[in-house]
Amino acid sequence: MDNAAPPAALDPAIAQRLKKTPDGLVAAIAQQHDTGEVLMLGWMDEEALRRTLTSGRATYYSRSRQEYWRKGDTSGHTQTVVSVSLDCDGDALLVQVDQVGAACHTGSRTCFAGRGLPVTAEPTQQTQQTQQEAAADA
Amino acid sequence: MDNAAPPAALDPAIAQRLKKTPDGLVAAIAQQHDTGEVLMLGWMDEEALRRTLTSGRATYYSRSRQEYWRKGDTSGHTQTVVSVSLDCDGDALLVQVDQVGAACHTGSRTCFAGRGLPVTAEPTQQTQQTQQEAAADA
Repeated sequence: MDNAAPPAALDPAIAQRLKKTPDGLVAAIAQQHDTGEVLMLGWMDEEALRRTLTSGRATYYSRSRQEYWRKGDTSGHTQTVVSVSLDCDGDALLVQVDQVGAACHTGSRTCFAGRGLPVTAEPTQQTQQTQQEAAADA
Repeated sequence: MDNAAPPAALDPAIAQRLKKTPDGLVAAIAQQHDTGEVLMLGWMDEEALRRTLTSGRATYYSRSRQEYWRKGDTSGHTQTVVSVSLDCDGDALLVQVDQVGAACHTGSRTCFAGRGLPVTAEPTQQTQQTQQEAAADA
C-alpha cells in the first residue's frame, strides 16, 4: 500500500525560489558540461523543471508553441542532464548537459555560433582604466 | 558640420530581430570568454544592448529596480565586452566578457556556484538507450 508514486509536482521549496517572467517562465541556459560551450537558452516552468530533474532529459516549455518540449524527441539531438543550478535571485537555471549532435534547430552546434553582433566600442579613458585594473588583478 | 553624434538608438536591423518577454526584455547570458564559466544571467532591452555594444561595458536592465545597470559601477566588478551574439530565434544574447572579481552580488565568482538542485533521475530504458546512443556518437 506504500508504492510511492512519482512526485506530481516540483518540490515546493524549489518552486517558491523561482522568480518568473510575466508569462510564468524562468530562463534555462544549456551548457555542454565538459567543454563549457553555451548551447542554447530555453524556458522552463515548474513542470518543465520537475521533468528535467526527475527524468534526466532536459525538458523546456516552448514560448512559441506553448507546449512542453523534451529536447531531442523529434531531432534525436538529446540533452542528458548532468547538473542543474538555480541562480542567486531565482530567475535563471544553468543546466549542464551532454548534448548529442547539434543543439540548434538550424543544425549548428550552438544557437549562438556565427551569430555575432558588431561591437563598436572604442577604448575610452574609463575602459582603458578597467582593462589595466583587470590586468593587475590577473 | 558633420561631426557624427553617437547613435541614439540600436541599429533597427538588430532591434527587429529581438524577441522579447512580455516585459520587453531579452535574456543575456554573461560568460567568461576564456574559461567558459557561465557567470550570470541579466536582462537587456534595446538601449541596454546598444550601450553594451557601443561602450565596451556590459550593461543590463534591472527587472527589480527598473533601471539600467552598468555592471561594476558600484561593486568595481566590471565586465569588459569581448563579443556579443544573438541566438537563432532572437530571445537570448550570449555576452562573452572579461569579468573582474566576482560576478555575483553575494561575492561568489558566478551566480550559479554552489546552488545545485537535486537531480533525481533514475536510469530508465529510455535514458539508458539515450546514453548508449550518445556513447555511439562520441
